[in-house]
Amino acid sequence: MTKQKIVVIGGGTGTYTVLQGLKRYQESVHLSAIVTMADSGGSTGRLRDEFGYLPVGDVRMALAALARESSEHEQLVRQLFMYRFDRGEGLSGHSFGNLFLVALRDILGSEDAAITAAAEVLQVAGTVIPVTTTPIDLVATYDDGVVVTGEHAIDAPVRDRTANRITKLAVTPAVSLSPRAATAIAEADLIVLGPGDLYTSILANCVVPGVAAALQATKARLVYIVNLMTRAGQTQNFTATDHVTELTKYIKRTPEYVLYNNAPLPSDLLVKYATEDEYPVALDLVSVEGVIGGDFLATDEVVSARGDTVRRSFIRHDSDKLASALMALV
Amino acid sequence: MTKQKIVVIGGGTGTYTVLQGLKRYQESVHLSAIVTMADSGGSTGRLRDEFGYLPVGDVRMALAALARESSEHEQLVRQLFMYRFDRGEGLSGHSFGNLFLVALRDILGSEDAAITAAAEVLQVAGTVIPVTTTPIDLVATYDDGVVVTGEHAIDAPVRDRTANRITKLAVTPAVSLSPRAATAIAEADLIVLGPGDLYTSILANCVVPGVAAALQATKARLVYIVNLMTRAGQTQNFTATDHVTELTKYIKRTPEYVLYNNAPLPSDLLVKYATEDEYPVALDLVSVEGVIGGDFLATDEVVSARGDTVRRSFIRHDSDKLASALMALV
Repeated sequence: MTKQKIVVIGGGTGTYTVLQGLKRYQESVHLSAIVTMADSGGSTGRLRDEFGYLPVGDVRMALAALARESSEHEQLVRQLFMYRFDRGEGLSGHSFGNLFLVALRDILGSEDAAITAAAEVLQVAGTVIPVTTTPIDLVATYDDGVVVTGEHAIDAPVRDRTANRITKLAVTPAVSLSPRAATAIAEADLIVLGPGDLYTSILANCVVPGVAAALQATKARLVYIVNLMTRAGQTQNFTATDHVTELTKYIKRTPEYVLYNNAPLPSDLLVKYATEDEYPVALDLVSVEGVIGGDFLATDEVVSARGDTVRRSFIRHDSDKLASALMALV
Repeated sequence: MTKQKIVVIGGGTGTYTVLQGLKRYQESVHLSAIVTMADSGGSTGRLRDEFGYLPVGDVRMALAALARESSEHEQLVRQLFMYRFDRGEGLSGHSFGNLFLVALRDILGSEDAAITAAAEVLQVAGTVIPVTTTPIDLVATYDDGVVVTGEHAIDAPVRDRTANRITKLAVTPAVSLSPRAATAIAEADLIVLGPGDLYTSILANCVVPGVAAALQATKARLVYIVNLMTRAGQTQNFTATDHVTELTKYIKRTPEYVLYNNAPLPSDLLVKYATEDEYPVALDLVSVEGVIGGDFLATDEVVSARGDTVRRSFIRHDSDKLASALMALV
């Protein structure tokens, strides 16, 4: 029997969570991750600027999610890959895995070769595919006419944009999706979008020229996993339906399945989120076939690698719960 | 039959050459490398200052020398370990292997654990042992009374010291050799000193309190491998006998064997060395038992990893030739 093919499209921690859960089913499914090449902030942004290579952060996260962790040794290699330096002039803030990918890229001469080699070191279950073969930048137009360029600027807006909505997202330059990403989408049985930052992680892939057409043409069924929380500057006041509507607007296809969490969110953490103007996504989805509510909430604490200064979602999805629900769809 | 135990004491490229040659005999000998913890320059010096850990450069070189390189994958891991960044603010000049060791040290909490883990990743044939468990600094007193502290300052003197000899080398603080180094010396069958910078690599180990006494007490036979070239600021005008005499002065024991190269040095390279005031070591050794001349010269070209800006010896010993000669002594 040929394995069912699942393609996860995104980047960042949401995609990490989905991949880590699905990894446990690698005996029965073939996994691919298509990740955005628009990242422009932090360690990844610095390396992108200084080396001119494809941004490595989302590749690193996807590889780490899919890395084997059976033995202590494998766990250590994975931990090292996720390690972030918190000291050292010019070194502080850099992820070791990012440096690893850049060094490999420099030695081997191409991003594909570097990712393949890193996947071998990490004994990765699946394939990680950059959505484009050149670095791109996101261009967001807001409802007040302001245009902001760069993923990092959109993700962490310098001026208060929480009153404004993004009315148009595009990429520059308008390069098309990579042949490998096109093939993966065409041959998929199930394609998973989300959870994750709607504009800077999910749509960052969908607005690459050719991706929407590929998503319309593929025989694969589409699953969208609704975020737990709104994101200030991106999806403030977005309900679950708003998320789905916005995705549909860009890919011009309605997902066959929408997964949303209906377990109660921990009230102590909600208070913390509220201080950053982030609130639970209102669950207003019409209960039709394919709209699947369930307890997809993680209850264990996040243990982040020492020195990892990037803010992580503390209210977040559970890898195993999501993976079970997704496996029921293939 | 128990394996013969060979201990190589030093650091830098000379020790690298010896270890790489001896690695091929790992079926019949047990290899240990005791390396200096006095390095204070370059990538290693920066990391030592910023993280406060043991200097990693000499450990990295020894691990790389002993790393398995049977498969393409192993060769790549080894190449990566030796890779040096040549771009990136604060990143340029850093050796990837150094960053690897620092990250492991940070995750695992001790240098010993970090070295053990790195040795596992690199599938190292043998053991790499820091000579002390805390970082130390070399203190050189010259014949004009000037005192210079720090390996890097001695190695790359800021004022012209080529007219002066080092009359006294010591370390600060006066910590004693590590228990593991003491055990390795005590249990060795053969101990190899050199080739390598006499003061900053070889004697840098021997002047650690306890090392000379350990070398006097061990049943192991001692081999000293004479350098091919003098080093400006360290061993200018030193003959082969001067090298042996200086070593003997510090360890208070005469090596049972002295190996020296008698193959002619390539004249085109000698011209380049002369521009840096470096000349062939004059071969004035008295031909007694244990003094062994031979062709130990490398004839292949040095291929240094991309971005490696450290100057390497281009007139240098051959790993295999040295290893054959050493194996005849065990």
